[in-house]
Amino acid sequence: MKLYNEADPAPNPRRVRIFLKEKGVDIELVPTPLMSRAHKSAEHLARNPLGQVPVLELDDGTHISESASICRYLEELHPEPNLFGRDAKERAMIDMWLRRVEFRLMQPLGQVWVHSHPFTAAVATQAFGQQFKDYGAANRKVFASGCKLFDREIEGRDFIAGPRYTMADIVAQTTFDFARFIGVDIPADCPALAAWYARVSARPSATFEVPEQRLAQARALGGA
Amino acid sequence: MKLYNEADPAPNPRRVRIFLKEKGVDIELVPTPLMSRAHKSAEHLARNPLGQVPVLELDDGTHISESASICRYLEELHPEPNLFGRDAKERAMIDMWLRRVEFRLMQPLGQVWVHSHPFTAAVATQAFGQQFKDYGAANRKVFASGCKLFDREIEGRDFIAGPRYTMADIVAQTTFDFARFIGVDIPADCPALAAWYARVSARPSATFEVPEQRLAQARALGGA
Repeated sequence: MKLYNEADPAPNPRRVRIFLKEKGVDIELVPTPLMSRAHKSAEHLARNPLGQVPVLELDDGTHISESASICRYLEELHPEPNLFGRDAKERAMIDMWLRRVEFRLMQPLGQVWVHSHPFTAAVATQAFGQQFKDYGAANRKVFASGCKLFDREIEGRDFIAGPRYTMADIVAQTTFDFARFIGVDIPADCPALAAWYARVSARPSATFEVPEQRLAQARALGGA
Repeated sequence: MKLYNEADPAPNPRRVRIFLKEKGVDIELVPTPLMSRAHKSAEHLARNPLGQVPVLELDDGTHISESASICRYLEELHPEPNLFGRDAKERAMIDMWLRRVEFRLMQPLGQVWVHSHPFTAAVATQAFGQQFKDYGAANRKVFASGCKLFDREIEGRDFIAGPRYTMADIVAQTTFDFARFIGVDIPADCPALAAWYARVSARPSATFEVPEQRLAQARALGGA
């Protein structure tokens, strides 16, 4: 089994690496550098026609893409520590929160990235005909509204989906890590969310594999 | 247990109703009409702070929102016929396809809806400051690209995630049902996708609960 992936701060590969560290599981990591467009090569498109990382290659040749689907699969192979829920109800709640993070935080943040960041001008032009800069900027407000909703919802509890750290936290923390990289901050009026982010960022699994300085440089480049 | 929901063609409640029909399970359905803004009432916001349907209310008072999370929960209560996968690998593949549908088809279609349809002008203005009409229109091309990707990927097999009907089909078919409602068609050069859509639409579970005429009227209204 091997994982085609990319270094920090790419949010989706980072989700799987944090998950593996929380599980204490080692998998062979195959670098697929986005800057050299390795993810758009014919070899990689055969693994994932969407041209994205991460992709998990099983020993029988099956390729699983989508970071959350890869983690679900790994959870079945390595059930402890549990990260997706211990019974039907907890599994449903964790899945619900995971989806709320993706649709209310990661989706608008992705639009900020695609439609307002200089790195993504070519990608946006290919997919949409142009970067819609005003739309990208408007998504900062949508992201901030999402943050306020999460701030209210998690007040009084330690983690996104309840009293313990789960996959919903991994998806959320990598979203905020990526937000920081592209110059989008947690709004000042979200103290519960900021405290949660400090809490999950202090876990050993959250250590960045690139120096904080590189994140800061990238952020400065981003025109944020 | 009861399901707060809305009639066709709202895509997310429809997912859960098709899922229930495929399972042969009856649940009390509580209408939550969007036109009268029942989903934004204080009672409903207490069930789901995102102000959306569907929401499943359990007998212990727990509320599960997110259509896919509701269906995952119901699958555990009613395992047969299986719709989320029989082993770890199949579950991962179905989850991967479900996510591809959501990110490559439903997301751009949602942007067409929010940013170019007259029904959603107020919603878009509240969230984004305005409707970004050119951006909405550009998403028709993104949706069409997604359709072509699916057309290539499913060629030679009967269903989205493999040889049998699963949750990935339900998420995809309700996406195309909704596309039809807002005046977005499967591109003419996607024969495998069109054949798949005819196949799933012929299942008894796919019957619309509103007359086809109403869908056609709504479509005409949409300025498609």
